[in-house]
Amino acid sequence: MKNAVHREIPDALLKDGVEAFQGAFYRDNYEFKKAAPKIRSQVQPGTSKMLDSIKEAVEKTGLKDGMTISFHHHFRNGDYVCAMVMEVIHEMGIKDLYICASSLGKAQASLVPMIEDGTITGISSSGVRDEIGEALSSGKLKNIATIRTHGGRVRAIETGQVHIDVAFIGASSSDPYGNASGKGGKADCGVLSYASVDAQYADKVVVITDTLVEAPNLPAPIQGVDVDYVVKVDSVGDPSKIASGAIRMTKDPRELKMAKACAEVIAATRWFKDGFSFQTGAGGASLAVTRFLKPFMDERGIKMGWGMGGITEPMVDLLREGYIRKLVNDQAFDIASVESVYTDPGHVEISSSQYANPMNKGAFVNYLDYVILGALEIDTDFNVNTVQGSDGTIQGAPGGHPDTAAGAKCTIIVAPLIRSRLATVRRQVTSVTTPGETVDVLVTDYGIAVNPNRQDILEELQKTRLPLVTIEELCDKAEAILGKPEPIQFTDQVVAVVEYRDGTIIDTIRKPASR
Amino acid sequence: MKNAVHREIPDALLKDGVEAFQGAFYRDNYEFKKAAPKIRSQVQPGTSKMLDSIKEAVEKTGLKDGMTISFHHHFRNGDYVCAMVMEVIHEMGIKDLYICASSLGKAQASLVPMIEDGTITGISSSGVRDEIGEALSSGKLKNIATIRTHGGRVRAIETGQVHIDVAFIGASSSDPYGNASGKGGKADCGVLSYASVDAQYADKVVVITDTLVEAPNLPAPIQGVDVDYVVKVDSVGDPSKIASGAIRMTKDPRELKMAKACAEVIAATRWFKDGFSFQTGAGGASLAVTRFLKPFMDERGIKMGWGMGGITEPMVDLLREGYIRKLVNDQAFDIASVESVYTDPGHVEISSSQYANPMNKGAFVNYLDYVILGALEIDTDFNVNTVQGSDGTIQGAPGGHPDTAAGAKCTIIVAPLIRSRLATVRRQVTSVTTPGETVDVLVTDYGIAVNPNRQDILEELQKTRLPLVTIEELCDKAEAILGKPEPIQFTDQVVAVVEYRDGTIIDTIRKPASR
Repeated sequence: MKNAVHREIPDALLKDGVEAFQGAFYRDNYEFKKAAPKIRSQVQPGTSKMLDSIKEAVEKTGLKDGMTISFHHHFRNGDYVCAMVMEVIHEMGIKDLYICASSLGKAQASLVPMIEDGTITGISSSGVRDEIGEALSSGKLKNIATIRTHGGRVRAIETGQVHIDVAFIGASSSDPYGNASGKGGKADCGVLSYASVDAQYADKVVVITDTLVEAPNLPAPIQGVDVDYVVKVDSVGDPSKIASGAIRMTKDPRELKMAKACAEVIAATRWFKDGFSFQTGAGGASLAVTRFLKPFMDERGIKMGWGMGGITEPMVDLLREGYIRKLVNDQAFDIASVESVYTDPGHVEISSSQYANPMNKGAFVNYLDYVILGALEIDTDFNVNTVQGSDGTIQGAPGGHPDTAAGAKCTIIVAPLIRSRLATVRRQVTSVTTPGETVDVLVTDYGIAVNPNRQDILEELQKTRLPLVTIEELCDKAEAILGKPEPIQFTDQVVAVVEYRDGTIIDTIRKPASR
Repeated sequence: MKNAVHREIPDALLKDGVEAFQGAFYRDNYEFKKAAPKIRSQVQPGTSKMLDSIKEAVEKTGLKDGMTISFHHHFRNGDYVCAMVMEVIHEMGIKDLYICASSLGKAQASLVPMIEDGTITGISSSGVRDEIGEALSSGKLKNIATIRTHGGRVRAIETGQVHIDVAFIGASSSDPYGNASGKGGKADCGVLSYASVDAQYADKVVVITDTLVEAPNLPAPIQGVDVDYVVKVDSVGDPSKIASGAIRMTKDPRELKMAKACAEVIAATRWFKDGFSFQTGAGGASLAVTRFLKPFMDERGIKMGWGMGGITEPMVDLLREGYIRKLVNDQAFDIASVESVYTDPGHVEISSSQYANPMNKGAFVNYLDYVILGALEIDTDFNVNTVQGSDGTIQGAPGGHPDTAAGAKCTIIVAPLIRSRLATVRRQVTSVTTPGETVDVLVTDYGIAVNPNRQDILEELQKTRLPLVTIEELCDKAEAILGKPEPIQFTDQVVAVVEYRDGTIIDTIRKPASR
């Protein structure tokens, strides 16, 4: 059947309560009983949780063929934990595992042979990049992978769609009771927001750290009362790859131009007033928006109430300079952010459920005024693709894109019309990640398009001198420059499902014929 | 049948999986699936949680006859919230409610007529004091009340023994999303540790505050993602009764003598070394122990690793003076404690599950070296009663007594042999709150008795000049002074069950014949 963004979803996927995408707010007010783990009580004091090795932990958890295990991505490209644990599991000969990861990328390249030999037969993740992305795109995984948003992953766990048997949580520091944190270690990642739900909903929870500290290691996003075992290893990650030293502020004139225009859009809309809330990404143009906002804030004499997201140095700077009252952090993207969270007053950690879960009683994304997002592709219905390259390969991530887009009062996509001879604006995206009904404004280097369902924003922008165009005009322009893009040829094999944040299927990804 | 502390438990109570007490660690390693609430998702942004009145909140939650509602006691004797909510419910004519309170006392006296008219037909609480205690003792409540420990209450909720339909959470401050805290308000109570489990496990959650602050009100022990509605009222409590100005340091020579002896016991045992953990109560002698520990710490050149509990000014002072590295706070007993938590580095809030829940993966009580506790009565098997007066009236609370006693390596009871012509040390306590197997040392003004099952501690104390006696000798002494206590006459009507922290029945309380 065709879903609400006109994508064909094979009937074979629509079973066991799984539905096709019906609209961004279809599951509003949906009543359900939350999932819960099966645990063992530790009444007797004096029982140590410390184990000597990852192998001992795997054995003690009772991990066996067919189970689901989880990892988080706070150590980003510097993560050693996922690869270390999987190497042990692989050596032990455990097969047919489902990996519920918050994101996978370069640091998990060693999982590819385990996909090929059936150690790993199922994957759900936000990011599916690099070697893992290649492997999935080529159809090497036995079962269809699920691409989930950050909010969608928590939702899947909290609703019981995914039940984690064993969570492996890499932590920068932990005490022997399992109170674990992204701070205070040899390799700090700042926050453990994405692992909180794993600790609370997995049957067995193993904390892996290289920095064992005296109890109590508080405040701790991972509470010892949820942790079964603690393993100390030599190193959980490469600090130089966990957080970038400093994210380069773009000098590209095209990016700067778009960033400035984006700031002007914000300044022209009615939510730009004292106490406004704001999120932006770490990409060149998105990051630069933060810088361009400052003069507008000065001019109006207003402050930002709170900034959220993957937090970066420019946001930390604004907090320190008094332009932002609070930063709520679910991911630390650079060293400044890692150092600032828990240290600067007003810079606090939130869990991924607090951040973006569509099926709790109101995540922070619901209260965002502005979010600035990127796009690999955007179509004339404002549907955005952030997952699949224009060659058909899985190489991106939904991350919090669909979550923040659905929540924010004003969702702005900043993207160049053309990248490396590929059109960003198209008649149809290769696959839909974020539905157009939740996307309000597109800022490109060839003009600014407003979604026709946001006449309120259009009227506000018409009072400015911003170069307004229609998205069809942008698409025409791209086609005039590049010609119509050749459609990619796909086989019939569905290799991944793009799940909307509420658990419905918004699109599928098939294996490209070229692979 | 007789349970493991030789108390007769009527068979009629042993149904639906309820068992008689079998020993303090009977439920160790018990496997169970945690309970979970039924919630409604808030996908659509822009929905306000703010309601105009408590009545509107009660209506919106769908509260009806026979349901279970919950309250916490962080506002202590200054609490307005429970009485305000119950007054509204009473006016609305809702009947047959089960109140799951963390504690009830003087501030809830207005509930007595509601017990009499069937608005309230069931109660579980730790403290059942003052007018409520009188009413329960007199058999006015329709159903048998349950006296629960602080850890036992969380356990009951997390295992699903108690399912809360609607939680009413009084908060010192909240933002419009329901992020609520014990700080930042007109009437600060410091922490909301006992309400955390309610927020996470109740189907509907209402935050009631007198101080609405700009979002995000973080850090917040009550997360907005768990909150359905927020109601702003004029006042949540009387600050002068929420926390005592300063708890009086005792000048009673008898109390000081016992406190000094208790400190000497601690100093003579092997856990008194750098990094030791410690909890004490707010009673005269218990509180004074803290003061007497200081010279011993100086002498050995050691620091306390962490102090826990109801936190009071002497503990805050030690933290500030560098004698304690961390304070973990589940209740703030005085203004100094309220002001210090979240403000002094190293003084952090923990939930009641983290504090004392026997059926998570290891609460902080499990890691206590020393706990100093009081007793209304203690028998020659070292069983302690902290709930029932020697006249048979319910007038106390288990609180964290059974929880910390079970967890700590060395549990010390400090109590005078005789109080107001009543013997503390007896052949048999009126009812058992804490089993003797978890009580190690009794410090009285007539000598120090060590539980025979702790020969290790006895040997350590024998190396000192502390006045060691047997508990039988203490009991003989009390009887020599006062004569044998007259047994109280009880009717057959069981008015309350004293539940051990693991959910088994450790004793029952019957209606005194005099009532």
